Amino acid sequence: MSSSFGKMLTLTTFGESHGAALGGVVDGFPSGIAIDEDFIRSEMARRRPGSTPLGTQRSEDDVPRILSGVFNGISTGTPIGFIIENKTQRSQDYSSIEHVYRPGHADYTYCAKYGLRDYRGGGRASGRETSCRVFGGALAKLFLREEGIAVNAAVIQVHGIKAEGYEWKPPFSPPLYAPPCRNLEAMIKAVEDARNDLDSVGGIIECHITGVPSGLGEPVFDKLDAVLAHAILSIGAVKGIEFGRGFESARLRGSENNDEMRAENGRIVFASNNAGGILGGISSGSDIVFRSAIKPTPSIAKTQLTVTDEMVNTEIAVHGRHDSTILPRAVPVIEAMAALTIADFLIQKRCYDKR
Amino acid sequence: MSSSFGKMLTLTTFGESHGAALGGVVDGFPSGIAIDEDFIRSEMARRRPGSTPLGTQRSEDDVPRILSGVFNGISTGTPIGFIIENKTQRSQDYSSIEHVYRPGHADYTYCAKYGLRDYRGGGRASGRETSCRVFGGALAKLFLREEGIAVNAAVIQVHGIKAEGYEWKPPFSPPLYAPPCRNLEAMIKAVEDARNDLDSVGGIIECHITGVPSGLGEPVFDKLDAVLAHAILSIGAVKGIEFGRGFESARLRGSENNDEMRAENGRIVFASNNAGGILGGISSGSDIVFRSAIKPTPSIAKTQLTVTDEMVNTEIAVHGRHDSTILPRAVPVIEAMAALTIADFLIQKRCYDKR
Amino acid sequence: MSSSFGKMLTLTTFGESHGAALGGVVDGFPSGIAIDEDFIRSEMARRRPGSTPLGTQRSEDDVPRILSGVFNGISTGTPIGFIIENKTQRSQDYSSIEHVYRPGHADYTYCAKYGLRDYRGGGRASGRETSCRVFGGALAKLFLREEGIAVNAAVIQVHGIKAEGYEWKPPFSPPLYAPPCRNLEAMIKAVEDARNDLDSVGGIIECHITGVPSGLGEPVFDKLDAVLAHAILSIGAVKGIEFGRGFESARLRGSENNDEMRAENGRIVFASNNAGGILGGISSGSDIVFRSAIKPTPSIAKTQLTVTDEMVNTEIAVHGRHDSTILPRAVPVIEAMAALTIADFLIQKRCYDKR
Amino acid sequence: MSSSFGKMLTLTTFGESHGAALGGVVDGFPSGIAIDEDFIRSEMARRRPGSTPLGTQRSEDDVPRILSGVFNGISTGTPIGFIIENKTQRSQDYSSIEHVYRPGHADYTYCAKYGLRDYRGGGRASGRETSCRVFGGALAKLFLREEGIAVNAAVIQVHGIKAEGYEWKPPFSPPLYAPPCRNLEAMIKAVEDARNDLDSVGGIIECHITGVPSGLGEPVFDKLDAVLAHAILSIGAVKGIEFGRGFESARLRGSENNDEMRAENGRIVFASNNAGGILGGISSGSDIVFRSAIKPTPSIAKTQLTVTDEMVNTEIAVHGRHDSTILPRAVPVIEAMAALTIADFLIQKRCYDKR
Repeated sequence: MSSSFGKMLTLTTFGESHGAALGGVVDGFPSGIAIDEDFIRSEMARRRPGSTPLGTQRSEDDVPRILSGVFNGISTGTPIGFIIENKTQRSQDYSSIEHVYRPGHADYTYCAKYGLRDYRGGGRASGRETSCRVFGGALAKLFLREEGIAVNAAVIQVHGIKAEGYEWKPPFSPPLYAPPCRNLEAMIKAVEDARNDLDSVGGIIECHITGVPSGLGEPVFDKLDAVLAHAILSIGAVKGIEFGRGFESARLRGSENNDEMRAENGRIVFASNNAGGILGGISSGSDIVFRSAIKPTPSIAKTQLTVTDEMVNTEIAVHGRHDSTILPRAVPVIEAMAALTIADFLIQKRCYDKR
Repeated sequence: MSSSFGKMLTLTTFGESHGAALGGVVDGFPSGIAIDEDFIRSEMARRRPGSTPLGTQRSEDDVPRILSGVFNGISTGTPIGFIIENKTQRSQDYSSIEHVYRPGHADYTYCAKYGLRDYRGGGRASGRETSCRVFGGALAKLFLREEGIAVNAAVIQVHGIKAEGYEWKPPFSPPLYAPPCRNLEAMIKAVEDARNDLDSVGGIIECHITGVPSGLGEPVFDKLDAVLAHAILSIGAVKGIEFGRGFESARLRGSENNDEMRAENGRIVFASNNAGGILGGISSGSDIVFRSAIKPTPSIAKTQLTVTDEMVNTEIAVHGRHDSTILPRAVPVIEAMAALTIADFLIQKRCYDKR
Repeated sequence: MSSSFGKMLTLTTFGESHGAALGGVVDGFPSGIAIDEDFIRSEMARRRPGSTPLGTQRSEDDVPRILSGVFNGISTGTPIGFIIENKTQRSQDYSSIEHVYRPGHADYTYCAKYGLRDYRGGGRASGRETSCRVFGGALAKLFLREEGIAVNAAVIQVHGIKAEGYEWKPPFSPPLYAPPCRNLEAMIKAVEDARNDLDSVGGIIECHITGVPSGLGEPVFDKLDAVLAHAILSIGAVKGIEFGRGFESARLRGSENNDEMRAENGRIVFASNNAGGILGGISSGSDIVFRSAIKPTPSIAKTQLTVTDEMVNTEIAVHGRHDSTILPRAVPVIEAMAALTIADFLIQKRCYDKR
Repeated sequence: MSSSFGKMLTLTTFGESHGAALGGVVDGFPSGIAIDEDFIRSEMARRRPGSTPLGTQRSEDDVPRILSGVFNGISTGTPIGFIIENKTQRSQDYSSIEHVYRPGHADYTYCAKYGLRDYRGGGRASGRETSCRVFGGALAKLFLREEGIAVNAAVIQVHGIKAEGYEWKPPFSPPLYAPPCRNLEAMIKAVEDARNDLDSVGGIIECHITGVPSGLGEPVFDKLDAVLAHAILSIGAVKGIEFGRGFESARLRGSENNDEMRAENGRIVFASNNAGGILGGISSGSDIVFRSAIKPTPSIAKTQLTVTDEMVNTEIAVHGRHDSTILPRAVPVIEAMAALTIADFLIQKRCYDKR
């Protein structure tokens, strides 16, 4: 299915950016978990438009309504249905893009696939779709929290500027959700410069998952890193992922890249974490670390060459309150997909744990 | 399921490196396709140990035996079962690693997951498992060939040395399966140097898929790039993947990264291919291009610190005929997983094509 | 997943009988289909409480609200999200069954599984859950109609009384949705007698699917009859299913049971349809015919022995406006599940059709 | 996938009756289970041709060869691959049916679906395919045995003759695998009469699953009875299934059909088992009981009308050593599919058990 993710814990979503509502179903969620709706709303607030001065100034409420699966504040084990009404976007005018394919967008490929598209605001391909992921991820985090597992992501590069000398001490702060670092202001300025130039910028987001027990992930096709890659690359703006040393490990020798092991107090300790916490597709007990490449937002006010849906050459400048970078708002989405993946594997692992 | 890949076209595999045999089932393969067994064997020959002077000098036959699903040389639409007997590996002595976890290997994580492991030659975590993928990929290629689709990969970086000035003209040649380039000899020397130092090296493999129609891939969770990432990261040695400009797009602005479009003879032509042939998770008709980071082989003869399965500190030097790089032998495996993914999506797409 | 049905065309549902709303997601629905909301509402009206004088006199509106996947009245190919608000049931008092397990209900098994339950009106185990199935089935029927396929069911037995001398001429009429037959009044009276006795009755529903092309269904595990059985037995009240001659074929010899074939005008015609339109799990082109055994509604006002959730013996008489038979309201639910199954297989079949 | 069954515990199979071999993969099998190969062979011996004087006198060995997933006699948690070589069937002559569709067989529907078929002995539609199910079921039984769960089936009706006054005391004995009963000889004679008349007979098989804990099965679409029905109807000869009182419950009132509950020693005891051990799709802790209708074997030596694959009317008498009833040999197949289903749900249940 294209609209479901997960095996035992699944998130199924629906919704276009300008339809009546988005929403979905979280199925396979364990019973007996306290559902902290304030926490869910705070997670969604991090993603919603208007959440950071570096992003779009459109403001949407993004308040989810839980319709089932929770009784007296506790999960019942039955599917958790939810909707997020679309309130503020009705009035916009999308007639200018009804027949024009925006470069870098999925306008053309949706038409190629379906023979038609809902052109209002990107339809199903809109970033607004990710609000449902953050809802599902917030539930997953509530479950993981009880297991001592935390998922945190941060922006570590904007445009060509990498965070220098940063320490990993979550939670991270707006406006950029980068870790404290020497050149934070330069990173922020890169976004502002792009906005002033009617342009946008990409960057890199790093994610750490702590408290993961060893033994998560399935050998061969559903390796933990393979499924995490699936989860993260399913986010529209992501163009690459790497685990541990990642692409840098291509430049290393085995003697440098292998993480040596020591026994300390009857437990294994790794001297380094080049593997990013995963060996042979199975978690090793070290922190899981990965980085994702985020492309610059395709909606820019600069004029670009393109074609109409009748194959006529034209040009386009996408006006409107678009994000000049999606980076800070992508942070909770990456955390959400990682949390869903880890929670699913944790549930699967229980099937085979010895009693 | 951990041992199956795909939705309509599936590959299910089994087998440890030192069991009686490996094998599997290709299900959902279309009927009426001529099964060219010479082609299958030639694909498997590219992966088998001993296929390149740069890899291990162990020699295995890797001849698959097709047990079902083919009648009079034509696929019948029923599942294609196959086995690959393990012939040459029986006699080796693995007692030295029976109780020691090799750094960079899955020895420890398998024990953490299953409570026991088949320690002979890596068991299920052995690279030998990929022989079944190459078999499945060869079948997928036979189907894709009839649709005008080709999948080709090549080594474009070894250790720190990137192929300079290369042209993409497959097929590529042994020993390295790199494209012809100015510094090919330096790339080969990097492998030989590592071997002389009892060490190993990693690198980068690029893959191009040509002839893909627009409209492949599913929005949201099963984006074409997400499933390709799942497929490729499920290969043991892969630590990262990027599509099109990938991590470089993090350093670009939207105006640089968006691929402008022009209409030529009633068809869309993209001025560039920074997207790597995928927009919004759906193929655009451009070539699909991705790169994978391959870590250096963990089995090295250099001495490394590690622990035993009874949590005693020790050290290990992994002797034997190991690959000092897995790069050339990983090329057909990457092609195979890409071919299976594209074939699956092509079959899925037909469900919704208009008649 | 427990809450999803189907492979390429999937229905995912959520909702308890007394939560805020029920709803779900229909995914994989083809693009370009006209969505006739009047038809959807008419299908749902057949199932809703109060639809027949033979059922409960509780009245619910059951008006679905489509939230996505339809644009300008046409399906877009993206997931169709929907909700059905629970309006009329809020005020009822369920405290009498909060701690008592009703015989024949899932009260006890839900507690055994989840450790808690939403006791209001059956929660997720309520027949109200089937409203989402009828919504999904109505969409499936809109698609099947374009392919010339019709799904019709009718009540052919109530209590011990079998419809005599009936002809199969759909559509069938309230109050019982039985085919016109000699003893229709006796069938209706059996329901009324049960009601007067504070009791309930079961019966048998027959379903015919016409216009199905040959070649639907997958050999071995996903035979067309196996998946139909899965679909129909997933309806709470169904205790058995049989195809064609079904249990009667157990009493036949091969020479009686085999359907002989003749060629007429270049097409195969079967002399009989004992197989119910399915051979080896694949549709033969004959009508698909199956019958389902429906148990008597477990909610009865007669006093029965039972226990509390603290294992104390007690008795219960379930008062309220319960159906003394679920038969007429089960008819559209059976049609819906059959329609979803056939539509899914029709979509899957296209993957492998020759061009 | 058509050739895989199960969710966490899966059986994937391949193989035609006259290809080189049949086989498959059991995936998700727990690690640490002793694999008793003698038991597996004894299960397969019950199904193999020649196992009963009432069936075909063709003799096949049906000895499975385990290729992976077992190390030192213990399951490792990795997939268990196996093959069953086809030894004795090579020499037969199937040219007489190469172009003729046998009534009651899948010859015509396979051609309709795939455009071609392997006509030798039924190909993939042959009953020989079930040998792989019995292998998988034997593994499942080894796991269930450790959990105190037993699966036993028996023939309770042949042609029109129902076993009278039988007690359920497994294991049951050849030649018929019926429970000891007053009219066993009449049942056996019904088979012999059919054989003498060049004909075949059907019947009914009952299955009891004991020791199942409450809480197995998923609400809504993957109810325990729905998935069991899927499993059992996927066996070629089965035309119907019913749980508990089944079709008889259609003739009952609620007050007769509901199973009253009593508390005894802090546990729930049901006064009857009309539900067949399943309420709301979830096991209640009572024995699970279902019955399957088995059609008469379609291969009969009597002459029948049919057509050729070029749509020419003809007739056929299927000679050869065919079963005049499949009943005794279907018993272990039904047990196998039931065992696989229960084992899968037991594994799934562990995901959500409280620690």
